[in-house]
Amino acid sequence: MYGWRGRFGHVSPALHDTQAYEMDQLLPEGVMVITTTLNVQNLVKEEFERAFSIMEAGALALAREEAGAIIIGGDPIFCLMGLGSHQKMIDTVFSKTHIPTSTTISASMDGLKDLGVKHLVIATPFVEERDEALRNYLEGSGFDVVGMKGLGITRNVDLTRVPFHASYQLAVDAFRKAKNAEGIYMPCSRWPTVRNIAPLEKDLGVPVVTNVQAMAWFGLKSLGIKEKIVGYGRLLEKLAE
Amino acid sequence: MYGWRGRFGHVSPALHDTQAYEMDQLLPEGVMVITTTLNVQNLVKEEFERAFSIMEAGALALAREEAGAIIIGGDPIFCLMGLGSHQKMIDTVFSKTHIPTSTTISASMDGLKDLGVKHLVIATPFVEERDEALRNYLEGSGFDVVGMKGLGITRNVDLTRVPFHASYQLAVDAFRKAKNAEGIYMPCSRWPTVRNIAPLEKDLGVPVVTNVQAMAWFGLKSLGIKEKIVGYGRLLEKLAE
Repeated sequence: MYGWRGRFGHVSPALHDTQAYEMDQLLPEGVMVITTTLNVQNLVKEEFERAFSIMEAGALALAREEAGAIIIGGDPIFCLMGLGSHQKMIDTVFSKTHIPTSTTISASMDGLKDLGVKHLVIATPFVEERDEALRNYLEGSGFDVVGMKGLGITRNVDLTRVPFHASYQLAVDAFRKAKNAEGIYMPCSRWPTVRNIAPLEKDLGVPVVTNVQAMAWFGLKSLGIKEKIVGYGRLLEKLAE
Repeated sequence: MYGWRGRFGHVSPALHDTQAYEMDQLLPEGVMVITTTLNVQNLVKEEFERAFSIMEAGALALAREEAGAIIIGGDPIFCLMGLGSHQKMIDTVFSKTHIPTSTTISASMDGLKDLGVKHLVIATPFVEERDEALRNYLEGSGFDVVGMKGLGITRNVDLTRVPFHASYQLAVDAFRKAKNAEGIYMPCSRWPTVRNIAPLEKDLGVPVVTNVQAMAWFGLKSLGIKEKIVGYGRLLEKLAE
Protein backbone atom coordinates (compact mmCIF):
# COMPACT_ATOMS: atom_id res chain seq x y z
CA MET A 1 0.00 0.00 0.00
CA TYR A 2 1.16 3.51 -0.80
CA GLY A 3 -0.49 5.50 2.01
CA TRP A 4 0.86 3.44 4.92
CA ARG A 5 1.92 6.54 6.86
CA GLY A 6 -1.26 8.50 6.18
CA ARG A 7 -3.79 9.40 3.49
CA PHE A 8 -5.64 12.61 2.94
CA GLY A 9 -8.36 13.39 0.46
CA HIS A 10 -8.53 16.15 -2.13
CA VAL A 11 -11.66 17.39 -3.85
CA SER A 12 -10.11 18.70 -7.07
CA PRO A 13 -12.34 21.40 -8.56
CA ALA A 14 -10.93 20.82 -12.05
CA LEU A 15 -9.53 17.76 -13.76
CA HIS A 16 -6.48 16.42 -12.01
CA ASP A 17 -2.96 16.64 -13.42
CA THR A 18 -0.47 19.40 -12.50
CA GLN A 19 -1.62 19.26 -8.84
CA ALA A 20 -0.52 15.62 -8.61
CA TYR A 21 2.97 16.31 -9.97
CA GLU A 22 3.38 19.33 -7.69
CA MET A 23 2.11 17.48 -4.61
CA ASP A 24 4.41 14.51 -5.24
CA GLN A 25 7.43 16.77 -4.86
CA LEU A 26 6.33 17.88 -1.39
CA LEU A 27 5.04 14.77 0.33
CA PRO A 28 7.21 12.31 2.26
CA GLU A 29 7.10 8.64 1.27
CA GLY A 30 4.18 6.74 2.74
CA VAL A 31 1.74 9.64 2.50
CA MET A 32 -0.91 9.31 -0.21
CA VAL A 33 -3.50 11.69 -1.63
CA ILE A 34 -6.93 10.34 -2.65
CA THR A 35 -8.52 12.49 -5.34
CA THR A 36 -12.01 13.07 -6.67
CA THR A 37 -12.63 15.56 -9.49
CA LEU A 38 -15.39 18.13 -10.08
CA ASN A 39 -14.24 18.86 -13.64
CA VAL A 40 -14.40 22.66 -13.94
CA GLN A 41 -12.97 23.39 -17.41
CA ASN A 42 -13.55 27.13 -17.72
CA LEU A 43 -13.07 29.62 -14.91
CA VAL A 44 -16.60 31.01 -15.22
CA LYS A 45 -19.65 31.42 -12.97
CA GLU A 46 -21.81 28.63 -14.45
CA GLU A 47 -19.11 26.02 -14.00
CA PHE A 48 -18.29 27.21 -10.48
CA GLU A 49 -21.96 26.89 -9.50
CA ARG A 50 -22.16 23.35 -10.92
CA ALA A 51 -18.96 22.37 -9.10
CA PHE A 52 -20.19 23.90 -5.83
CA SER A 53 -23.39 21.84 -6.06
CA ILE A 54 -21.44 18.53 -6.08
CA MET A 55 -18.55 19.57 -3.80
CA GLU A 56 -20.04 18.20 -0.58
CA ALA A 57 -20.77 14.85 -2.28
CA GLY A 58 -17.12 14.69 -3.34
CA ALA A 59 -15.95 15.30 0.22
CA LEU A 60 -18.30 12.64 1.59
CA ALA A 61 -16.96 10.14 -0.97
CA LEU A 62 -13.47 10.84 0.39
CA ALA A 63 -14.73 10.19 3.90
CA ARG A 64 -16.06 6.80 2.77
CA GLU A 65 -12.55 6.11 1.40
CA GLU A 66 -11.35 6.63 4.99
CA ALA A 67 -9.26 9.71 4.31
CA GLY A 68 -7.54 11.00 7.45
CA ALA A 69 -8.19 14.61 6.40
CA ILE A 70 -10.14 16.30 3.60
CA ILE A 71 -9.15 19.36 1.56
CA ILE A 72 -11.54 20.99 -0.87
CA GLY A 73 -10.02 23.03 -3.68
CA GLY A 74 -11.37 25.98 -5.64
CA ASP A 75 -10.58 29.48 -4.30
CA PRO A 76 -12.51 31.08 -7.19
CA ILE A 77 -15.58 28.99 -6.38
CA PHE A 78 -15.72 30.18 -2.77
CA CYS A 79 -15.00 33.75 -3.85
CA LEU A 80 -18.06 33.55 -6.10
CA MET A 81 -20.27 31.95 -3.44
CA GLY A 82 -19.53 34.77 -1.02
CA LEU A 83 -17.52 35.55 2.10
CA GLY A 84 -17.56 32.73 4.62
CA SER A 85 -18.82 30.12 2.12
CA HIS A 86 -15.67 28.02 2.64
CA GLN A 87 -16.30 27.87 6.40
CA LYS A 88 -19.90 26.81 5.84
CA MET A 89 -18.71 23.98 3.57
CA ILE A 90 -16.08 22.93 6.13
CA ASP A 91 -18.66 22.92 8.94
CA THR A 92 -21.12 20.87 6.88
CA VAL A 93 -18.54 18.26 5.88
CA PHE A 94 -17.07 18.06 9.39
CA SER A 95 -20.50 17.67 11.01
CA LYS A 96 -21.19 14.68 8.75
CA THR A 97 -17.74 13.06 8.81
CA HIS A 98 -15.87 14.22 11.95
CA ILE A 99 -12.75 14.24 9.75
CA PRO A 100 -10.45 17.32 9.87
CA THR A 101 -11.55 19.34 6.83
CA SER A 102 -10.23 22.44 5.13
CA THR A 103 -10.33 24.24 1.79
CA THR A 104 -7.41 25.52 -0.23
CA ILE A 105 -8.38 29.11 0.56
CA SER A 106 -8.68 28.51 4.30
CA ALA A 107 -5.56 26.34 4.52
CA SER A 108 -3.73 29.13 2.67
CA MET A 109 -5.11 31.88 4.91
CA ASP A 110 -4.23 29.82 8.00
CA GLY A 111 -0.73 29.35 6.59
CA LEU A 112 -0.31 33.07 5.97
CA LYS A 113 -1.47 33.84 9.53
CA ASP A 114 0.88 31.22 10.92
CA LEU A 115 3.74 32.98 9.11
CA GLY A 116 2.66 36.37 10.48
CA VAL A 117 1.60 37.75 7.10
CA LYS A 118 -1.20 40.34 7.06
CA HIS A 119 -0.16 42.69 4.24
CA LEU A 120 0.35 40.59 1.14
CA VAL A 121 0.77 40.48 -2.59
CA ILE A 122 -1.16 38.00 -4.72
CA ALA A 123 0.14 36.50 -7.97
CA THR A 124 -2.39 34.41 -9.89
CA PRO A 125 -2.99 32.81 -13.27
CA PHE A 126 -6.51 34.36 -13.34
CA VAL A 127 -8.21 37.31 -15.06
CA GLU A 128 -8.79 40.59 -13.23
CA GLU A 129 -12.39 39.79 -12.29
CA ARG A 130 -11.28 36.62 -10.46
CA ASP A 131 -8.41 38.48 -8.83
CA GLU A 132 -10.72 41.23 -7.58
CA ALA A 133 -13.06 38.62 -6.11
CA LEU A 134 -10.11 36.98 -4.36
CA ARG A 135 -8.89 40.34 -3.04
CA ASN A 136 -12.35 41.01 -1.59
CA TYR A 137 -12.46 37.57 0.00
CA LEU A 138 -9.04 37.96 1.57
CA GLU A 139 -9.71 41.52 2.76
CA GLY A 140 -13.07 40.42 4.16
CA SER A 141 -11.13 37.77 6.06
CA GLY A 142 -8.73 40.23 7.72
CA PHE A 143 -5.87 40.50 5.21
CA ASP A 144 -4.63 43.59 3.39
CA VAL A 145 -3.85 43.03 -0.30
CA VAL A 146 -1.15 45.55 -1.21
CA GLY A 147 -0.43 44.30 -4.73
CA MET A 148 -1.86 41.96 -7.32
CA LYS A 149 -0.94 40.51 -10.70
CA GLY A 150 -2.63 37.89 -12.88
CA LEU A 151 -1.85 36.04 -16.09
CA GLY A 152 -5.35 36.47 -17.53
CA ILE A 153 -6.18 32.81 -18.12
CA THR A 154 -9.80 31.61 -18.30
CA ARG A 155 -9.50 28.15 -19.91
CA ASN A 156 -8.45 25.61 -17.37
CA VAL A 157 -6.27 23.61 -19.78
CA ASP A 158 -4.18 26.73 -20.41
CA LEU A 159 -3.22 26.77 -16.73
CA THR A 160 -1.42 23.47 -17.20
CA ARG A 161 0.65 24.92 -20.06
CA VAL A 162 2.11 27.82 -18.08
CA PRO A 163 5.93 27.50 -18.13
CA PHE A 164 7.72 26.71 -14.87
CA HIS A 165 9.33 30.16 -14.63
CA ALA A 166 6.11 32.17 -15.01
CA SER A 167 4.93 32.16 -11.40
CA TYR A 168 8.40 33.24 -10.22
CA GLN A 169 8.49 36.23 -12.56
CA LEU A 170 4.89 37.22 -11.89
CA ALA A 171 5.38 37.15 -8.12
CA VAL A 172 8.62 39.17 -8.32
CA ASP A 173 6.90 41.74 -10.50
CA ALA A 174 3.88 42.08 -8.20
CA PHE A 175 6.09 42.21 -5.10
CA ARG A 176 8.46 44.90 -6.42
CA LYS A 177 5.57 47.14 -7.48
CA ALA A 178 3.93 46.92 -4.03
CA LYS A 179 4.90 48.58 -0.78
CA ASN A 180 5.31 46.89 2.60
CA ALA A 181 4.30 43.40 1.45
CA GLU A 182 5.03 40.88 4.20
CA GLY A 183 4.35 37.83 2.06
CA ILE A 184 3.08 36.41 -1.22
CA TYR A 185 0.05 34.25 -1.93
CA MET A 186 -0.21 32.26 -5.18
CA PRO A 187 -3.61 30.56 -5.50
CA CYS A 188 -4.63 27.83 -7.98
CA SER A 189 -3.15 24.35 -7.92
CA ARG A 190 -3.22 23.73 -11.65
CA TRP A 191 -0.36 26.02 -12.71
CA PRO A 192 3.18 25.15 -11.63
CA THR A 193 4.37 27.03 -8.52
CA VAL A 194 6.06 24.76 -5.99
CA ARG A 195 9.59 24.84 -7.40
CA ASN A 196 9.52 28.66 -7.26
CA ILE A 197 8.60 28.94 -3.58
CA ALA A 198 12.14 28.62 -2.20
CA PRO A 199 13.80 30.87 -4.85
CA LEU A 200 11.15 33.55 -4.21
CA GLU A 201 11.60 33.38 -0.46
CA LYS A 202 15.38 33.68 -0.87
CA ASP A 203 15.30 36.50 -3.41
CA LEU A 204 12.51 38.59 -1.87
CA GLY A 205 13.01 37.77 1.81
CA VAL A 206 9.32 37.12 2.57
CA PRO A 207 7.31 33.89 2.98
CA VAL A 208 5.40 32.46 0.04
CA VAL A 209 2.18 30.43 0.31
CA THR A 210 0.69 28.48 -2.60
CA ASN A 211 -2.36 26.22 -2.81
CA VAL A 212 -0.59 22.89 -3.21
CA GLN A 213 1.87 23.74 -0.43
CA ALA A 214 -0.92 24.85 1.92
CA MET A 215 -2.87 21.66 1.16
CA ALA A 216 0.18 19.56 2.01
CA TRP A 217 0.68 21.58 5.20
CA PHE A 218 -2.91 21.09 6.37
CA GLY A 219 -2.97 17.43 5.34
CA LEU A 220 0.30 16.49 7.03
CA LYS A 221 -0.53 18.46 10.17
CA SER A 222 -3.93 16.74 10.40
CA LEU A 223 -2.36 13.31 9.93
CA GLY A 224 0.25 14.00 12.60
CA ILE A 225 3.21 13.68 10.21
CA LYS A 226 6.12 15.62 11.73
CA GLU A 227 8.53 15.40 8.81
CA LYS A 228 10.55 18.53 8.09
CA ILE A 229 10.03 19.25 4.41
CA VAL A 230 12.87 21.35 3.01
CA GLY A 231 12.97 23.31 -0.24
CA TYR A 232 9.33 24.32 -0.53
CA GLY A 233 9.06 27.32 1.76
CA ARG A 234 9.01 28.23 5.43
CA LEU A 235 5.47 26.93 5.96
CA LEU A 236 6.38 23.29 5.38
CA GLU A 237 9.66 23.62 7.25
CA LYS A 238 7.62 24.44 10.36
CA LEU A 239 5.88 21.04 10.32
CA ALA A 240 8.65 19.40 12.34
CA GLU A 241 8.76 22.14 15.02
CA MET B 1 4.29 22.82 -17.76
CA TYR B 2 4.52 19.16 -16.81
CA GLY B 3 3.15 17.48 -19.94
CA TRP B 4 5.49 19.16 -22.45
CA ARG B 5 6.31 15.88 -24.17
CA GLY B 6 2.76 14.60 -24.25
CA ARG B 7 -0.43 14.26 -22.20
CA PHE B 8 -2.95 11.49 -22.13
CA GLY B 9 -6.26 11.31 -20.33
CA HIS B 10 -7.54 8.70 -17.90
CA VAL B 11 -11.14 8.13 -16.94
CA SER B 12 -10.62 6.61 -13.49
CA PRO B 13 -13.60 4.42 -12.57
CA ALA B 14 -12.90 4.80 -8.85
CA LEU B 15 -11.33 7.56 -6.83
CA HIS B 16 -7.77 8.23 -7.83
CA ASP B 17 -4.75 7.37 -5.69
CA THR B 18 -2.72 4.17 -6.11
CA GLN B 19 -2.99 4.45 -9.91
CA ALA B 20 -1.17 7.79 -9.81
CA TYR B 21 1.74 6.44 -7.74
CA GLU B 22 2.01 3.37 -9.94
CA MET B 23 1.84 5.35 -13.19
CA ASP B 24 4.48 7.83 -12.01
CA GLN B 25 7.01 5.02 -11.78
CA LEU B 26 6.49 4.08 -15.43
CA LEU B 27 6.24 7.34 -17.33
CA PRO B 28 9.23 9.28 -18.68
CA GLU B 29 9.62 12.93 -17.63
CA GLY B 30 7.52 15.32 -19.67
CA VAL B 31 4.57 12.96 -20.03
CA MET B 32 1.53 13.85 -17.95
CA VAL B 33 -1.73 12.07 -17.18
CA ILE B 34 -4.97 14.08 -16.92
CA THR B 35 -7.51 12.34 -14.68
CA THR B 36 -11.24 12.49 -14.16
CA THR B 37 -12.94 10.24 -11.60
CA LEU B 38 -16.20 8.27 -11.69
CA ASN B 39 -16.01 7.40 -7.97
CA VAL B 40 -16.99 3.73 -7.81
CA GLN B 41 -16.53 2.82 -4.13
CA ASN B 42 -17.89 -0.72 -4.01
CA LEU B 43 -17.32 -3.32 -6.71
CA VAL B 44 -21.03 -3.99 -7.20
CA LYS B 45 -23.53 -3.83 -10.07
CA GLU B 46 -25.37 -0.64 -9.04
CA GLU B 47 -22.17 1.38 -8.85
CA PHE B 48 -20.86 -0.04 -12.14
CA GLU B 49 -24.10 0.98 -13.87
CA ARG B 50 -23.88 4.51 -12.46
CA ALA B 51 -20.23 4.81 -13.51
CA PHE B 52 -21.00 3.48 -17.00
CA SER B 53 -23.70 6.13 -17.43
CA ILE B 54 -21.19 8.98 -16.91
CA MET B 55 -18.15 7.34 -18.53
CA GLU B 56 -18.58 8.91 -21.96
CA ALA B 57 -19.00 12.38 -20.39
CA GLY B 58 -15.71 11.84 -18.57
CA ALA B 59 -13.93 10.94 -21.80
CA LEU B 60 -15.36 13.98 -23.59
CA ALA B 61 -14.14 16.22 -20.74
CA LEU B 62 -10.64 14.82 -21.31
CA ALA B 63 -10.96 15.63 -25.02
CA ARG B 64 -11.80 19.24 -24.13
CA GLU B 65 -8.62 19.26 -22.01
CA GLU B 66 -6.80 18.44 -25.25
CA ALA B 67 -5.55 15.01 -24.19
CA GLY B 68 -3.49 13.33 -26.91
CA ALA B 69 -5.04 9.94 -26.10
CA ILE B 70 -7.85 8.74 -23.85
CA ILE B 71 -7.96 5.59 -21.71
CA ILE B 72 -11.09 4.51 -19.90
CA GLY B 73 -10.65 2.29 -16.86
CA GLY B 74 -12.95 -0.30 -15.31
CA ASP B 75 -12.58 -3.91 -16.52
CA PRO B 76 -15.38 -5.05 -14.16
CA ILE B 77 -17.73 -2.40 -15.58
CA PHE B 78 -17.31 -3.62 -19.16
CA CYS B 79 -17.56 -7.24 -18.02
CA LEU B 80 -20.93 -6.40 -16.48
CA MET B 81 -22.15 -4.45 -19.53
CA GLY B 82 -21.46 -7.41 -21.78
CA LEU B 83 -19.02 -8.64 -24.40
CA GLY B 84 -17.95 -5.93 -26.82
CA SER B 85 -19.20 -3.06 -24.60
CA HIS B 86 -15.66 -1.65 -24.37
CA GLN B 87 -15.42 -1.44 -28.17
CA LYS B 88 -18.78 0.31 -28.39
CA MET B 89 -17.57 2.89 -25.87
CA ILE B 90 -14.29 3.35 -27.76
CA ASP B 91 -16.14 3.81 -31.06
CA THR B 92 -18.54 6.35 -29.54
CA VAL B 93 -15.78 8.42 -27.95
CA PHE B 94 -13.57 8.25 -31.05
CA SER B 95 -16.41 9.27 -33.37
CA LYS B 96 -16.98 12.39 -31.24
CA THR B 97 -13.35 13.31 -30.52
CA HIS B 98 -11.10 11.73 -33.19
CA ILE B 99 -8.60 11.13 -30.38
CA PRO B 100 -7.00 7.66 -30.04
CA THR B 101 -9.11 5.96 -27.38
CA SER B 102 -8.83 2.71 -25.49
CA THR B 103 -10.00 1.04 -22.30
CA THR B 104 -7.90 -0.75 -19.71
CA ILE B 105 -9.36 -4.08 -20.77
CA SER B 106 -8.71 -3.53 -24.48
CA ALA B 107 -5.25 -2.03 -23.97
CA SER B 108 -4.46 -5.06 -21.82
CA MET B 109 -5.83 -7.54 -24.37
CA ASP B 110 -3.90 -5.76 -27.13
CA GLY B 111 -0.77 -5.95 -25.00
CA LEU B 112 -1.23 -9.68 -24.38
CA LYS B 113 -1.73 -10.28 -28.12
CA ASP B 114 1.33 -8.19 -28.90
CA LEU B 115 3.32 -10.44 -26.56
CA GLY B 116 1.93 -13.58 -28.21
CA VAL B 117 -0.09 -14.66 -25.18
CA LYS B 118 -3.28 -16.65 -25.80
CA HIS B 119 -3.36 -19.11 -22.87
CA LEU B 120 -3.15 -17.07 -19.70
CA VAL B 121 -3.54 -16.95 -15.96
CA ILE B 122 -5.35 -14.10 -14.24
CA ALA B 123 -4.53 -12.81 -10.76
CA THR B 124 -6.95 -10.23 -9.40
CA PRO B 125 -7.95 -8.46 -6.20
CA PHE B 126 -11.62 -9.28 -6.92
CA VAL B 127 -14.22 -11.80 -5.68
CA GLU B 128 -15.02 -14.94 -7.65
CA GLU B 129 -18.10 -13.46 -9.34
CA ARG B 130 -16.00 -10.61 -10.83
CA ASP B 131 -13.27 -13.05 -11.82
CA GLU B 132 -15.75 -15.33 -13.60
CA ALA B 133 -17.16 -12.33 -15.51
CA LEU B 134 -13.62 -11.35 -16.51
CA ARG B 135 -12.84 -14.92 -17.60
CA ASN B 136 -15.97 -14.93 -19.80
CA TYR B 137 -15.06 -11.57 -21.29
CA LEU B 138 -11.50 -12.66 -22.09
CA GLU B 139 -12.60 -16.04 -23.47
CA GLY B 140 -15.29 -14.33 -25.55
CA SER B 141 -12.48 -12.16 -26.93
CA GLY B 142 -10.31 -15.08 -28.07
CA PHE B 143 -8.19 -15.85 -25.00
CA ASP B 144 -8.01 -19.08 -23.03
CA VAL B 145 -7.95 -18.60 -19.26
CA VAL B 146 -6.06 -21.59 -17.83
CA GLY B 147 -5.90 -20.41 -14.22
CA MET B 148 -7.37 -17.77 -11.97
CA LYS B 149 -6.94 -16.47 -8.41
CA GLY B 150 -8.52 -13.52 -6.61
CA LEU B 151 -8.11 -11.79 -3.25
CA GLY B 152 -11.85 -11.50 -2.64
CA ILE B 153 -12.05 -7.73 -2.16
CA THR B 154 -15.32 -5.83 -2.74
CA ARG B 155 -14.70 -2.47 -1.03
CA ASN B 156 -12.63 -0.25 -3.22
CA VAL B 157 -10.68 1.34 -0.36
CA ASP B 158 -9.44 -2.12 0.66
CA LEU B 159 -7.71 -2.42 -2.74
CA THR B 160 -5.44 0.47 -1.80
CA ARG B 161 -4.39 -1.29 1.41
CA VAL B 162 -3.13 -4.47 -0.28
CA PRO B 163 0.57 -4.91 0.61
CA PHE B 164 3.14 -4.57 -2.17
CA HIS B 165 4.06 -8.26 -2.13
CA ALA B 166 0.50 -9.59 -2.48
CA SER B 167 0.15 -9.42 -6.27
CA TYR B 168 3.51 -11.19 -6.70
CA GLN B 169 2.52 -14.08 -4.45
CA LEU B 170 -0.98 -14.36 -5.91
CA ALA B 171 0.33 -14.48 -9.48
CA VAL B 172 2.98 -17.08 -8.63
CA ASP B 173 0.36 -19.22 -6.92
CA ALA B 174 -2.09 -18.99 -9.84
CA PHE B 175 0.66 -19.65 -12.39
CA ARG B 176 2.12 -22.71 -10.62
CA LYS B 177 -1.33 -24.32 -10.28
CA ALA B 178 -2.09 -23.84 -13.98
CA LYS B 179 -0.77 -25.75 -16.98
CA ASN B 180 0.68 -24.25 -20.15
CA ALA B 181 0.15 -20.61 -19.20
CA GLU B 182 1.95 -18.33 -21.66
CA GLY B 183 1.42 -15.18 -19.66
CA ILE B 184 -0.22 -13.46 -16.69
CA TYR B 185 -2.86 -10.73 -16.62
CA MET B 186 -3.40 -8.65 -13.47
CA PRO B 187 -6.39 -6.30 -13.86
CA CYS B 188 -7.37 -3.38 -11.61
CA SER B 189 -5.25 -0.27 -11.26
CA ARG B 190 -6.03 0.43 -7.62
CA TRP B 191 -3.98 -2.35 -6.01
CA PRO B 192 -0.19 -2.21 -6.27
CA THR B 193 1.26 -4.36 -9.09
CA VAL B 194 3.87 -2.52 -11.14
CA ARG B 195 6.91 -3.25 -8.99
CA ASN B 196 6.13 -6.99 -9.23
CA ILE B 197 6.02 -7.16 -13.02
CA ALA B 198 9.75 -7.59 -13.59
CA PRO B 199 10.31 -10.05 -10.70
CA LEU B 200 7.40 -12.17 -11.95
CA GLU B 201 8.68 -12.18 -15.53
CA LYS B 202 12.14 -13.19 -14.30
CA ASP B 203 10.96 -15.89 -11.89
CA LEU B 204 8.22 -17.42 -14.05
CA GLY B 205 9.65 -16.79 -17.51
CA VAL B 206 6.44 -15.46 -19.06
CA PRO B 207 5.24 -11.93 -19.83
CA VAL B 208 3.04 -10.06 -17.34
CA VAL B 209 0.42 -7.46 -18.26
CA THR B 210 -1.24 -5.18 -15.70
CA ASN B 211 -3.77 -2.36 -16.12
CA VAL B 212 -1.50 0.57 -15.26
CA GLN B 213 1.28 -0.83 -17.44
CA ALA B 214 -1.09 -1.41 -20.39
CA MET B 215 -2.48 2.12 -20.01
CA ALA B 216 1.03 3.57 -20.12
CA TRP B 217 1.81 1.42 -23.18
CA PHE B 218 -1.27 2.56 -25.08
CA GLY B 219 -0.85 6.18 -24.01
CA LEU B 220 2.84 6.44 -24.91
CA LYS B 221 2.34 4.60 -28.21
CA SER B 222 -0.51 6.94 -29.14
CA LEU B 223 1.56 10.01 -28.26
CA GLY B 224 4.51 8.77 -30.32
CA ILE B 225 6.87 8.55 -27.33
CA LYS B 226 9.59 6.04 -28.21
CA GLU B 227 11.31 5.83 -24.84
CA LYS B 228 12.47 2.40 -23.77
CA ILE B 229 11.03 1.86 -20.31
CA VAL B 230 13.01 -0.70 -18.37
CA GLY B 231 12.02 -2.58 -15.22
CA TYR B 232 8.28 -2.86 -15.75
CA GLY B 233 7.93 -5.77 -18.12
CA ARG B 234 8.51 -6.74 -21.72
CA LEU B 235 5.50 -4.80 -22.98
CA LEU B 236 6.95 -1.40 -22.13
CA GLU B 237 10.43 -2.39 -23.25
CA LYS B 238 9.00 -2.85 -26.73
CA LEU B 239 8.00 0.81 -27.01
CA ALA B 240 11.40 1.82 -28.35
CA GLU B 241 11.55 -0.94 -30.98
